[in-house]
Amino acid sequence: MSVQIIPVKLSKDVCPGDDLAEILLKTKAGRGLKDRDILVFTQKIISKQEGQKIDLSQVRPTLLATGIASAYNKDPKIIQLVLDQTKRLVRMKNGIIISETHQGLVCANAGIDESNVEKGSATLLPKNADNSADKLRRKIKTKTGKNVAVIISDTFGRPFREGQTDVAIGISGISSIINYEGKRDAFDRVLRVTAIAVADEICSASELVRGKMLNTPIAIIRNYQFDKKNGRLEDLLRDKSLDLFR
Amino acid sequence: MSVQIIPVKLSKDVCPGDDLAEILLKTKAGRGLKDRDILVFTQKIISKQEGQKIDLSQVRPTLLATGIASAYNKDPKIIQLVLDQTKRLVRMKNGIIISETHQGLVCANAGIDESNVEKGSATLLPKNADNSADKLRRKIKTKTGKNVAVIISDTFGRPFREGQTDVAIGISGISSIINYEGKRDAFDRVLRVTAIAVADEICSASELVRGKMLNTPIAIIRNYQFDKKNGRLEDLLRDKSLDLFR
Repeated sequence: MSVQIIPVKLSKDVCPGDDLAEILLKTKAGRGLKDRDILVFTQKIISKQEGQKIDLSQVRPTLLATGIASAYNKDPKIIQLVLDQTKRLVRMKNGIIISETHQGLVCANAGIDESNVEKGSATLLPKNADNSADKLRRKIKTKTGKNVAVIISDTFGRPFREGQTDVAIGISGISSIINYEGKRDAFDRVLRVTAIAVADEICSASELVRGKMLNTPIAIIRNYQFDKKNGRLEDLLRDKSLDLFR
Repeated sequence: MSVQIIPVKLSKDVCPGDDLAEILLKTKAGRGLKDRDILVFTQKIISKQEGQKIDLSQVRPTLLATGIASAYNKDPKIIQLVLDQTKRLVRMKNGIIISETHQGLVCANAGIDESNVEKGSATLLPKNADNSADKLRRKIKTKTGKNVAVIISDTFGRPFREGQTDVAIGISGISSIINYEGKRDAFDRVLRVTAIAVADEICSASELVRGKMLNTPIAIIRNYQFDKKNGRLEDLLRDKSLDLFR
């Protein structure tokens, strides 16, 4: 059976405190929601809804932030936000800052984003996107009776390969990873592939109908068969001690 | 419009020299092929079709391979194959070998795979998967008149995050990357995201209908809108001099 990736366009920008479940359910695609649909929301609308938008005029850069900004020809206020959101600096080179954020995500600029918000402001990542996903899933269940899964998606770069792809930063109601460890293939041999990060693959799939310029911050993945439902972001985060590249 | 991911099951294993276009076109999904469909083939069936399968009894491990194998508790013949396919060792630690292959891919074990082939053999990556994709695309055009795109997909791990995802190792008839550089968002601000690796996202999407245990080595992506058609693998490979993690 084929899997469908359905775009959900919104007619207006999301504001702090908006009821995203209600906004979704008012769309045509939202009215047709089915049991076992997977809803992928972009980080951006979750951050906006949760008020994770910072007025840059309120940011006071430290000397450290001012120094880095000067060397990298960047806005010291943005660098201050990056430092505030960083648990550990992973790389700082060629004008690029790769951070491990307080959430454990490894990404450029600690996920601080100035695009798709008004000038003079920037968005931070959701504080706990698993919780954001939980809340949406439960609200949709209450309003519609449907059992759906919810994933929060963001667009990150990666080592070795050019271009960015979407990955999961929050998960509710679906496994993050399918584990094949010890399973045997058609020739009765142990599989090389031991664990597939399906939550990340679902986010990448959802990006295909979103684009970046369009007002399409939600996608529905339909007919994807999944059993276990207990995925969390931490399943996808490699421990630093096991990482060959940190 | 929603994008569809359609699995293509094959009834038998692929052998060297098989006509993969013919095999595809004999399936139900293949008979319904449409203009602008994107066909994603797994590395495994391309390698098998191209005879990139090695009889391990023919491999003579060097002292280096024997030493590494002994330290890592692995088969010296497999290590020899890994070394043969490696242009540059990126990491060798905790029993894991990360190679840059002759094709420029950075992955574990230079892509050598013992799963889904008979015991006593292993598959290598296709020598040039862009060419493999070109050939399939042209053959499908000749046989059906349809203009399709073809991507060859493999399952790789990555730094920072647990689990593996599918990425493109060969591209024909579609862009590897969509470039947003300099484009402006809804607020007339320059986008943070500058380039989306759509070929990789398409591979990840295709993995969702494949699983690892099923005889589903081909997927069709339908209704994905794309314009430019000149993608190659090299678009996706970050130059070592620009990579913060090599």
